[in-house]
Amino acid sequence: DFNAISPIVIGILGGDGIGPTIAEESRKVLEYLLRDQVASGKVVFRIIDGLTIENRAANMQSIPDDVLAEIKECHVTLKGPTHTPEQGDGWPNLESANVGMRKVLDLFANVRPVRVPAQGIDWTFFRENTEDMYAVGSQGVNVTDDLAIDFRVITSQGSERIIDAAFAHAKRTGKDSVTIVTKANIVKTTDGKFLDIARKVAEDYPGISWEGWYIDIMTAALINPARQRQFQVLALPNLYGDILTDEAAQIQGGVGTAGSANVGKVYSMFEAIHGSAPRMVQEGRAQYADPSSMVRAGAMLMEHIGFQESGARLHKALDICGQYERTVAMTGRSTGVTSGEYGQYLMATVEDS
Amino acid sequence: DFNAISPIVIGILGGDGIGPTIAEESRKVLEYLLRDQVASGKVVFRIIDGLTIENRAANMQSIPDDVLAEIKECHVTLKGPTHTPEQGDGWPNLESANVGMRKVLDLFANVRPVRVPAQGIDWTFFRENTEDMYAVGSQGVNVTDDLAIDFRVITSQGSERIIDAAFAHAKRTGKDSVTIVTKANIVKTTDGKFLDIARKVAEDYPGISWEGWYIDIMTAALINPARQRQFQVLALPNLYGDILTDEAAQIQGGVGTAGSANVGKVYSMFEAIHGSAPRMVQEGRAQYADPSSMVRAGAMLMEHIGFQESGARLHKALDICGQYERTVAMTGRSTGVTSGEYGQYLMATVEDS
Ligand SMILES: CC(C)[C@H](C(=O)O)[C@@H](O)C(=O)O
Ligand SMILES: CC(C)[C@H](C(=O)O)[C@@H](O)C(=O)O
Repeated sequence: DFNAISPIVIGILGGDGIGPTIAEESRKVLEYLLRDQVASGKVVFRIIDGLTIENRAANMQSIPDDVLAEIKECHVTLKGPTHTPEQGDGWPNLESANVGMRKVLDLFANVRPVRVPAQGIDWTFFRENTEDMYAVGSQGVNVTDDLAIDFRVITSQGSERIIDAAFAHAKRTGKDSVTIVTKANIVKTTDGKFLDIARKVAEDYPGISWEGWYIDIMTAALINPARQRQFQVLALPNLYGDILTDEAAQIQGGVGTAGSANVGKVYSMFEAIHGSAPRMVQEGRAQYADPSSMVRAGAMLMEHIGFQESGARLHKALDICGQYERTVAMTGRSTGVTSGEYGQYLMATVEDS
Repeated sequence: DFNAISPIVIGILGGDGIGPTIAEESRKVLEYLLRDQVASGKVVFRIIDGLTIENRAANMQSIPDDVLAEIKECHVTLKGPTHTPEQGDGWPNLESANVGMRKVLDLFANVRPVRVPAQGIDWTFFRENTEDMYAVGSQGVNVTDDLAIDFRVITSQGSERIIDAAFAHAKRTGKDSVTIVTKANIVKTTDGKFLDIARKVAEDYPGISWEGWYIDIMTAALINPARQRQFQVLALPNLYGDILTDEAAQIQGGVGTAGSANVGKVYSMFEAIHGSAPRMVQEGRAQYADPSSMVRAGAMLMEHIGFQESGARLHKALDICGQYERTVAMTGRSTGVTSGEYGQYLMATVEDS
């Protein structure tokens, strides 16, 4: 209960690429909305440096020890996107910093809302956040020079807690159905387990129905106007969740518009759903990075720590500005608006609405 | 060389659910377009029964031996969708019939074109068809009651032949780029191998550039008007190909509109990209199944066996009718047209254009 805690410490992790720009913009918006709480000492922002690819590579740790210690001193963190090395890009074979935090802080639920009120779209994705291809991501096996194997891991406990979180959310928010997404016709053992657990968890929620969908046809259904309105709360294994939420975010105006909560029993971390956009940085366009994703994550953070009203106001402003963004996205143009200008625009929209 | 072969034997496999309806509709259209060749004995259609879920379950084989023997007597086959059992649906744990055929006939390239001429979309997906999660799909391990593992297998040879097929296609059709889709930032060993091989194969095609994309952001890029035109030929591991092509097909009007070629060194099989639609059958709507996917597969089949002109005419008719279908899909309504009526409509369109 965050009511009882004072001060609530919000850690800010800038990250790589466009990360520091958009994380700072989100921090500014939060500081503005929580200015009374900041003034009274109830809320404190703490900037945490060092979660950069340079520093992670130098320490050979996906979360350097001193950074992790600081993170654990915060009640919640807001994290900018970080660069994830891949074979051959020059960086050592380090695990992704997001994935590292998700595992080490046991942030098992990756909650990603996508809303397009004008089209009746109001989806909340519950992406499992610690298992699947991510469990042993860096530890695949080169059996021979020509044969490589990776492992997909699904546990009963891991499946149960994310599926239960989805059903509980549906119940709390008055939704009447949960959609479970797998590829159980092919990936029979692990996705079969996920579906089995879904069947069991569903028994605890007699008022809520559920339906299984395959990930392939689900990517079609999300952009099928005849289907879009039928989905409400979705629960998915990690990688399918990763894939489907980027598509869903595009419907909302682009991955740049979607935030996510990484929630565990003890810690939580709020971030954009997209990466650090090295292309934008290379092309010298970092200052045009859309901060909406990080601001959306900030709105979720405020709700999480008990500032429901400020959170809701910010969500609403994002929906309004998002309408404009979607229009721009549909025409395939860039907004031509800097991160800072967009932050101002959001704050003004909060005041106006 | 199919010019030298006479008769060319085209096997027709009905499959399950809506399969027999739409396979038969496609056969009719082919028979109509190839009527001279049928009359002269150059082309023979051979109906192959027995690839039904009932028969496969009774034989406990994804392709019963006698069916396989008949398939091998044909030069090419046109296959309707088949039901793939999943845990708990009452059928035994059999491998998917598509997947069985792909493996046993070594149909390593799953080629899936998606075209929306009005939007400048002209994509050809080269989906690897024998490895990835599909390699040992039914043989995951329940390590304990609570811990399940599946295996993802990627080989150098398997990656090379599909990536090479994609580059060769780009070269042949005058395209200047190939897009490689992986999740190499997480699935480092197997997707790292796929990317490594792409780097090597690309060296053999100096005129063609290539770019790597991650599967998550790729699902967003496909529906991003600012990105759509930049993709031409795409090469992907099996499951990402499965996922992305259903989304791409939806942009074209729905999975019901997309056909695919499963091509190997010796055999080839042409099919819809979607499943057998048990829901449609349950809801008594099987006769309204859109046969376009199977007709599209038929057009690809005709091109493959040397009837380029008839194939091209049929593709064109499908593009024209597809425009109408997309309009209907956008409004979220069903066409209300039966399979048979749609077949007639396609034949009339071929004649008119
Ligand atoms: C950057 C990457 C490692 C990450 C993921 O795959 O989870 C991102 O795509 C996300 O969705 O948060
Ligand atoms: C039915 C299913 C086994 C199949 C697959 O996963 O390959 C289908 O989705 C496809 O794309 O051909």
